[in-house]
Amino acid sequence: MRYVKDFHWSKGMRIRGMMDSFSHLGFQSIQLANARDIIVKMKKEGAKIFLTFTSNMVTSGLRGLFAQLVSLGMADILVTTAGAIEEDIMKAYGERFLIGRFSADDVELYEKGVNRVGNLFVRNESYEKFEDVMGGLLKSIYEKKPRWSVSEMLREFGLSLNDEHSILYQAARRNVPVFCPAITDGSIGFHLYMFQQDHPDFVVDVVEDFKRILWSTSYDDKKGIISLGGSVSKHHALLAALLNGGMNYAVYLTTAHSSSGSMSGATTDEAKSWGKVKDDSDVSTVIGDVTITFPLVIISALDELSDEGVIKG
Amino acid sequence: MRYVKDFHWSKGMRIRGMMDSFSHLGFQSIQLANARDIIVKMKKEGAKIFLTFTSNMVTSGLRGLFAQLVSLGMADILVTTAGAIEEDIMKAYGERFLIGRFSADDVELYEKGVNRVGNLFVRNESYEKFEDVMGGLLKSIYEKKPRWSVSEMLREFGLSLNDEHSILYQAARRNVPVFCPAITDGSIGFHLYMFQQDHPDFVVDVVEDFKRILWSTSYDDKKGIISLGGSVSKHHALLAALLNGGMNYAVYLTTAHSSSGSMSGATTDEAKSWGKVKDDSDVSTVIGDVTITFPLVIISALDELSDEGVIKG
Amino acid sequence: MRYVKDFHWSKGMRIRGMMDSFSHLGFQSIQLANARDIIVKMKKEGAKIFLTFTSNMVTSGLRGLFAQLVSLGMADILVTTAGAIEEDIMKAYGERFLIGRFSADDVELYEKGVNRVGNLFVRNESYEKFEDVMGGLLKSIYEKKPRWSVSEMLREFGLSLNDEHSILYQAARRNVPVFCPAITDGSIGFHLYMFQQDHPDFVVDVVEDFKRILWSTSYDDKKGIISLGGSVSKHHALLAALLNGGMNYAVYLTTAHSSSGSMSGATTDEAKSWGKVKDDSDVSTVIGDVTITFPLVIISALDELSDEGVIKG
Amino acid sequence: MRYVKDFHWSKGMRIRGMMDSFSHLGFQSIQLANARDIIVKMKKEGAKIFLTFTSNMVTSGLRGLFAQLVSLGMADILVTTAGAIEEDIMKAYGERFLIGRFSADDVELYEKGVNRVGNLFVRNESYEKFEDVMGGLLKSIYEKKPRWSVSEMLREFGLSLNDEHSILYQAARRNVPVFCPAITDGSIGFHLYMFQQDHPDFVVDVVEDFKRILWSTSYDDKKGIISLGGSVSKHHALLAALLNGGMNYAVYLTTAHSSSGSMSGATTDEAKSWGKVKDDSDVSTVIGDVTITFPLVIISALDELSDEGVIKG
Repeated sequence: MRYVKDFHWSKGMRIRGMMDSFSHLGFQSIQLANARDIIVKMKKEGAKIFLTFTSNMVTSGLRGLFAQLVSLGMADILVTTAGAIEEDIMKAYGERFLIGRFSADDVELYEKGVNRVGNLFVRNESYEKFEDVMGGLLKSIYEKKPRWSVSEMLREFGLSLNDEHSILYQAARRNVPVFCPAITDGSIGFHLYMFQQDHPDFVVDVVEDFKRILWSTSYDDKKGIISLGGSVSKHHALLAALLNGGMNYAVYLTTAHSSSGSMSGATTDEAKSWGKVKDDSDVSTVIGDVTITFPLVIISALDELSDEGVIKG
Repeated sequence: MRYVKDFHWSKGMRIRGMMDSFSHLGFQSIQLANARDIIVKMKKEGAKIFLTFTSNMVTSGLRGLFAQLVSLGMADILVTTAGAIEEDIMKAYGERFLIGRFSADDVELYEKGVNRVGNLFVRNESYEKFEDVMGGLLKSIYEKKPRWSVSEMLREFGLSLNDEHSILYQAARRNVPVFCPAITDGSIGFHLYMFQQDHPDFVVDVVEDFKRILWSTSYDDKKGIISLGGSVSKHHALLAALLNGGMNYAVYLTTAHSSSGSMSGATTDEAKSWGKVKDDSDVSTVIGDVTITFPLVIISALDELSDEGVIKG
Repeated sequence: MRYVKDFHWSKGMRIRGMMDSFSHLGFQSIQLANARDIIVKMKKEGAKIFLTFTSNMVTSGLRGLFAQLVSLGMADILVTTAGAIEEDIMKAYGERFLIGRFSADDVELYEKGVNRVGNLFVRNESYEKFEDVMGGLLKSIYEKKPRWSVSEMLREFGLSLNDEHSILYQAARRNVPVFCPAITDGSIGFHLYMFQQDHPDFVVDVVEDFKRILWSTSYDDKKGIISLGGSVSKHHALLAALLNGGMNYAVYLTTAHSSSGSMSGATTDEAKSWGKVKDDSDVSTVIGDVTITFPLVIISALDELSDEGVIKG
Repeated sequence: MRYVKDFHWSKGMRIRGMMDSFSHLGFQSIQLANARDIIVKMKKEGAKIFLTFTSNMVTSGLRGLFAQLVSLGMADILVTTAGAIEEDIMKAYGERFLIGRFSADDVELYEKGVNRVGNLFVRNESYEKFEDVMGGLLKSIYEKKPRWSVSEMLREFGLSLNDEHSILYQAARRNVPVFCPAITDGSIGFHLYMFQQDHPDFVVDVVEDFKRILWSTSYDDKKGIISLGGSVSKHHALLAALLNGGMNYAVYLTTAHSSSGSMSGATTDEAKSWGKVKDDSDVSTVIGDVTITFPLVIISALDELSDEGVIKG
């Protein structure tokens, strides 16, 4: 039996030390400490790691951390949404997002050409520049062939970038596939449509991508997932693993609760009924804002893995 | 200025009457009464109505209501996720889902071949039968042509069904397009992949679908949205409207909060900054479980519209 | 085994009929239908019923319904917070609260002397009039004796009122005790303090109230709770029942989740570990805004009880 | 204008450094970084600081941190609930709580005499020992006088303890008053009641406590609040400050949302309409589990204050 221990401050505390204390502190802190232990374990035991995230996390500034995780070998398969792809490319081309406020006047923002995502602002001009970039990228891949699976296409995009903080850049260089099951659900969808108007044989083959995510792991591989937020990115990785015997390790960080029956709030326990995670797997669900919980859990895991020589850095 | 009024029970109360009282009852009840008024207004003013929902709502039993709304002319464009398509077809073929418990033993369920979605259970055999159905459906459409946009394909599926409580059935007969931007994110994705293995020229054209949702309304149309839950279904409808000048009416029913910066929790106010809804549009965001809030808001709206002769029934 | 059934609209639906359908509709709708059945059962089996609520529900307009429940014999013991007491009295003296907006400008409201509670507004003048009322009430009870338990004092307040929609009025006339374990936590606390300054022997005896709530039921009584929201009102009723063998029936309606370990989010299951509810009791926890879920559950329960002749009305 | 910056891991990161990065990371991370800045500012500008918390946070293990904050001069007035008082005393007498699981079998726990609070367990024997302790404490204070305000009584309890990790111990030695507006809402209420049965002139004077919290600050003092969770502890501190001109600084850490109109979810903005916080005050509301957010915000604040010599440590 483990006991609750009184938590105390000591000057200059490191995240790793605080997370050690969280193992003895009640409620979501324990869940977070467990999640850290599972991430360390999945890496040490050589699991193929799925990292899934929604576009708002790329908006938030976690993008740099995702790219770094790829470069450190901490993520073998990425699954995300269209907005994440767009914003990763925008930022690789130098666009910057602004710190705003949740309570900003949205009508006023609209008049100024500013779009709000929670307490962040994205200017219209960021989308305008993205349009030019996409025009060039699509032309360039079409010249090679007319039919592309999404993950192949995103790899080409990544190879064209020149920003080591870019997710697509790191993924392309590390042969980490990036899956995006709803690729048209963003301004990129509009650009794909415009391009197809002029090039009717241009095809984005989402079915081929299903094969590719299925084959990205084997039945015999140990498999783990770090799922941030909900949406199709979470579901798609679980589905791919389900068809290959299920995840051995699962960490869900989300703000959604299980009470609504939604995928975003579905717990690691519920996943066991489906075989999405194995019945004896190591799992932890942590309820909380990912921009707080993810840095904590991953920094402490990386510190530990680095000390043990499992990763560089 | 409107005042809070004490709420009272009277025997045999109708939903419509209760919702009238909600206009004078604080917190989410007011939001729900506002949402009802906006739905009535969008219909009476001839708006093209987007209805978006996630797959768990089809699991829940709201499927019959969605189909009925299509048949009543209350939904002109549907946007949803792959699970919703699958389950609508399963149910049209007679599969039944079970009432379960949130706290069921998930490992035990797995051993029994039962999958949990919140407090509902879906048996593996429902998926097995679906596999046979999909084999036939895909073969049949492929014989017509090899390249299909998603909404065209779903229309064919709908025409093949024989269940008036089916969403796809009603949508096909009413020429209501059904969009599913992440069509491969479900067991249907697996079946599409298997079929493509044998028929390499079979293509699901998601880019063509972007054109179709864009052209499903015009810039001059009045446009409204009833969005249930979050995910790509919500975002995709808003995106399509944004490119056509924005929604004039917007009702969001969701359990997600705006604090995480997610699309699921993004409010109707945030949407104004993007032009997803017009700056002077009628909007209401209601926080709560959709299996409770949606029946209330739509029953009271239908009662009112029926009394005024706007809809039949 | 029960099955999910497709939900449909029929014109002029009554709440009771909709709630019957909710028994076959997934997620929180099922929980709500269960809660209704438990409320019907606790009344039919003669349980002593604790009704607990927080002050914002009195602000909202549910006050009239609470008073009505007392008059119908549906609540035997009330537990609430200081704000609920204050606002019930204010409204009995004719004060009216305003329908406002969640996104109102709070600095501007302050300048206008308007206080915001979610999407409702309460004017400063309502508090000013309350001050006069309290002065008279305290003087009047002090003339009888200097030491009062809270529930005795609130009974005197209730007897002095002349508004059948008042909770205190109905409770006083029905000998339903009203407990308020944090009676000083409101402007009433300030008025009690001012009065004690002039009358140092004036004592509000909260310890005596503990005896009174403990003795309000016996170990042999069947006991039930309908708990709205969280806070000390919920905890206090459970504590009193725990010392008398625990609740036989428990319905919690709340927006709080169990993940934070708080009392507000503590589930009916957690309550079993404490003996707050008996291990074989009938329980249902429903997550959602009480201003929506409570009218539904109680209207349908009252309709059923009235049909069966258990209550009048 | 501030910009979002990509977040990166560097080995051995300290909490303070991570929190600096949070100023440039979207969503609740920014709110948390703001909260840290406000806490630093309120201390440096000599504000009287109210620290409020609910009992589950004492259960969790944050108790040690609360005691340490008092000893460091970071909290001038404490407001909490009865459970927090009980558990602080239990722990001072050596009781230990267990790390459990949210999904434990509650009926089985009950049979073993174990009570669950989220993912923590408290054994019945902890309550039994507490009964003995309380018997002695009450006898000892009654010998001095029969009528006690709550905060005076809690001071006596604190003086009797011998555990530097105890909140009451540190508060008593530092002349930091501890307020508990619902002192009877716990097993302590039962012990007070039993004692009063034998000593009818024993009085716990909650009205006197209102005077004491009101006079614990003056109109001219700068005032700040760090409010953890909701409940009467949050409301009571705000009420006391309201009557003295309002808070100049306010940090709310909570899992509750504003949508339900509850006090727990009421925002720092809503507080401005009441004058609970001044209209030009520094405020931050952070949504998230307090056992994660509070260590982060306070450790980084203490590190900064220590570097600047404002606090020792």
